[in-house]
Amino acid sequence: MKTKLGPHNALYPMPTVLVGAMVNGKPNFITIAHLGIMDLGTISISVNQQHYSCVGIKESKAFSLNIPSTDMVTEVDYCGIVSGERMDKASLFDVFIGDDSGAPMISKCPVNMECELLKTFDFHEHDVYIGKIVQTHCDESILENGTIVPSKLDPILFFMDDRSYHGLGGKLASAWKIGEKLIDA
Amino acid sequence: MKTKLGPHNALYPMPTVLVGAMVNGKPNFITIAHLGIMDLGTISISVNQQHYSCVGIKESKAFSLNIPSTDMVTEVDYCGIVSGERMDKASLFDVFIGDDSGAPMISKCPVNMECELLKTFDFHEHDVYIGKIVQTHCDESILENGTIVPSKLDPILFFMDDRSYHGLGGKLASAWKIGEKLIDA
Repeated sequence: MKTKLGPHNALYPMPTVLVGAMVNGKPNFITIAHLGIMDLGTISISVNQQHYSCVGIKESKAFSLNIPSTDMVTEVDYCGIVSGERMDKASLFDVFIGDDSGAPMISKCPVNMECELLKTFDFHEHDVYIGKIVQTHCDESILENGTIVPSKLDPILFFMDDRSYHGLGGKLASAWKIGEKLIDA
Repeated sequence: MKTKLGPHNALYPMPTVLVGAMVNGKPNFITIAHLGIMDLGTISISVNQQHYSCVGIKESKAFSLNIPSTDMVTEVDYCGIVSGERMDKASLFDVFIGDDSGAPMISKCPVNMECELLKTFDFHEHDVYIGKIVQTHCDESILENGTIVPSKLDPILFFMDDRSYHGLGGKLASAWKIGEKLIDA
């Protein structure tokens, strides 16, 4: 039995990332799960225009996406509820700067993507920043044959509905493969 | 130890959805995991411009996002590898049409979002369709106190790296809550 919820966004879970940017010459990080993939080389992040990071992203025309593992969930949540205007959130982390973008990144996150700001879309209260991925840094410990292993990445998944973070479950099937059994079935 | 992967998109997992659209007057569905949230009322989907669905989305200015549970993984993969130009993919499903958009939706998916096409962004080989959510239909069985329960939604999560579908893991923590312990810590 279906019920109508009105125009409710239920497009979850989304991966939870720490977005890094230089703001007033110093590294800052903000937690973002409202994000997306435009095409294989291009991603989007949605940031409330009130946030401290917006100035830095626009000025430096660069930002990073840092994918944390589940053992960082407390720091990740903290970076979403505290403003970089009041707190030095970068002091929580060992930070390195990308050669390709100048964006700050978090060593402890197993994956870091440096992005160049391509465009900004104005969505009322939110800026949507479109980033071209210029370099991806990855912990060797989560790779097998050069491929990221999802269970080793161990990402944090965000749901808005019940305001929760979840971990990743087990593998269900291979993509572009299991559906073949319905062809000519 | 970090290694550089080049400009590699590692922003996974993404939720896997079946996108519905009327194409030449008939319902069609395509599997999409390259998607995003622009703001709470607005989502994006990225569709290769060669796909059959593109014509229908542009003509009808409407589409739906249908969130499947893990028991649909075979059908979901099938709808990603077979073109609606050759196969009637809608025949796999019990389909209903949205009053608010005219977009076709899949009854078996526990969540269906009807979207109005707001804008199309041209990303080289991909169209990125920006949709305003106009109505969300939800199975009552996955709700508790009007809120979607992630474990009952039981979504399919896609990784490009190892071409896999994964299920959802357990709850880690409450969002906008667990990070409070670092405030004044």
